[in-house]
Amino acid sequence: MIKLTIFDLDDTLFNSTELSTQARRNAVRAMIDLGLPATFEEAYQVLSEVVEEYGSNYGHHFDQMLKRLNVESDKLKLYVSAGMIAYHDVKYANIRPFHDVIPTFIRLKKLEVKICILSDGDAIKQYEKILRLRLQDFLDDIIITEEVGIRKPNPKLFELPLKRAKVQPNEAIYIGDNYERDIVPCIKIGIKTVLIHRGGKYDQSNMKKRSPPPDYEIYNLNDLVSIIEKINLNQ
Amino acid sequence: MIKLTIFDLDDTLFNSTELSTQARRNAVRAMIDLGLPATFEEAYQVLSEVVEEYGSNYGHHFDQMLKRLNVESDKLKLYVSAGMIAYHDVKYANIRPFHDVIPTFIRLKKLEVKICILSDGDAIKQYEKILRLRLQDFLDDIIITEEVGIRKPNPKLFELPLKRAKVQPNEAIYIGDNYERDIVPCIKIGIKTVLIHRGGKYDQSNMKKRSPPPDYEIYNLNDLVSIIEKINLNQ
Repeated sequence: MIKLTIFDLDDTLFNSTELSTQARRNAVRAMIDLGLPATFEEAYQVLSEVVEEYGSNYGHHFDQMLKRLNVESDKLKLYVSAGMIAYHDVKYANIRPFHDVIPTFIRLKKLEVKICILSDGDAIKQYEKILRLRLQDFLDDIIITEEVGIRKPNPKLFELPLKRAKVQPNEAIYIGDNYERDIVPCIKIGIKTVLIHRGGKYDQSNMKKRSPPPDYEIYNLNDLVSIIEKINLNQ
Repeated sequence: MIKLTIFDLDDTLFNSTELSTQARRNAVRAMIDLGLPATFEEAYQVLSEVVEEYGSNYGHHFDQMLKRLNVESDKLKLYVSAGMIAYHDVKYANIRPFHDVIPTFIRLKKLEVKICILSDGDAIKQYEKILRLRLQDFLDDIIITEEVGIRKPNPKLFELPLKRAKVQPNEAIYIGDNYERDIVPCIKIGIKTVLIHRGGKYDQSNMKKRSPPPDYEIYNLNDLVSIIEKINLNQ
């Protein structure tokens, strides 16, 4: 009997990678408009390398980009500020859930299945995403790793929502886009797993056979409720 | 011969105090909408005390407010995030220069008088204000105290724009709304001074006689260019 759904946030509930790409392109354009001595292609390439090396949740991408471009200027912080404005304006003007998220959440609410978001990252930033996506009223629990001091893929992190909802592992199902960080730890502790193939990181290599395999693989959330109903019927 | 104008930013070029008040009220409302267990009046009063005690440039007003309200909740960072979104949305959606700023800057450009902004505060935040006010193309120099490591009212800070523009003190004029922090240090080093009576902190007490007095006192920027033209005619 599934009583709890646990969702990853970025690239599972909204198109985070694509939005970040658009936002970073806008940031580079804004800095060049202010006089940054580089071509768009050059600066965007360097920024992409910084993001790749430091991870997308690092807080000083633009500072590192300017260092690598050897920009000597008394306008460094002006560039950074312009980049941050342009990034934030695009990212949060355009953030919206994938089209199937709200309908799925409504159906889960009708089934009285609880909904939790479990997300890696900076708490203030992740809450900003949840609030701007207007998901908060659907959620029974929110766990951001910065607040609990455990990160994906540590299995202990995935025990937390179970404890807080007072359910057993086999009464919960996890939906995420990242096999290594989302699915593997859930399999270890006996949570049912759904690997969703979407978001910017999705490519053909994601389709290879995994071992151990996730319980389910889907391309959107439309099938999730029938998966849960089927599990619940058989128990 | 005046060759350089140096402007304070907050409450001199835009109505910072009033905008911050609106933004903080919006932040408190957003937190209450999410379930913050307090009345609007109570929470806003506590927030105002925090701002008064820690200063408006402190970075953790909402955290301190929640501590003082004894809010025990696993939603603390959700409240903080909602407050920050609501604050930022109001502050930067509505930021615009006082109506006389751009006409004055255009007239100063025609006179070939340089324009510098000299502002206390966090560099990224102050640059964001300048960029969202769309003042950057008028400016020959920008000095944010965090970047140079000297704060108002240290007179050494006010020597910097002179050095960078290669002008003597009596070739520069400073325009700001704060007698103690803007005007007194300029008088000490011989920069001409204009005290402008506007912005949220302006009240009748500002009208008392000051000793030493500023060279000029004005209520808006319309008179600034004629003040400069008069000085330049007499030299």
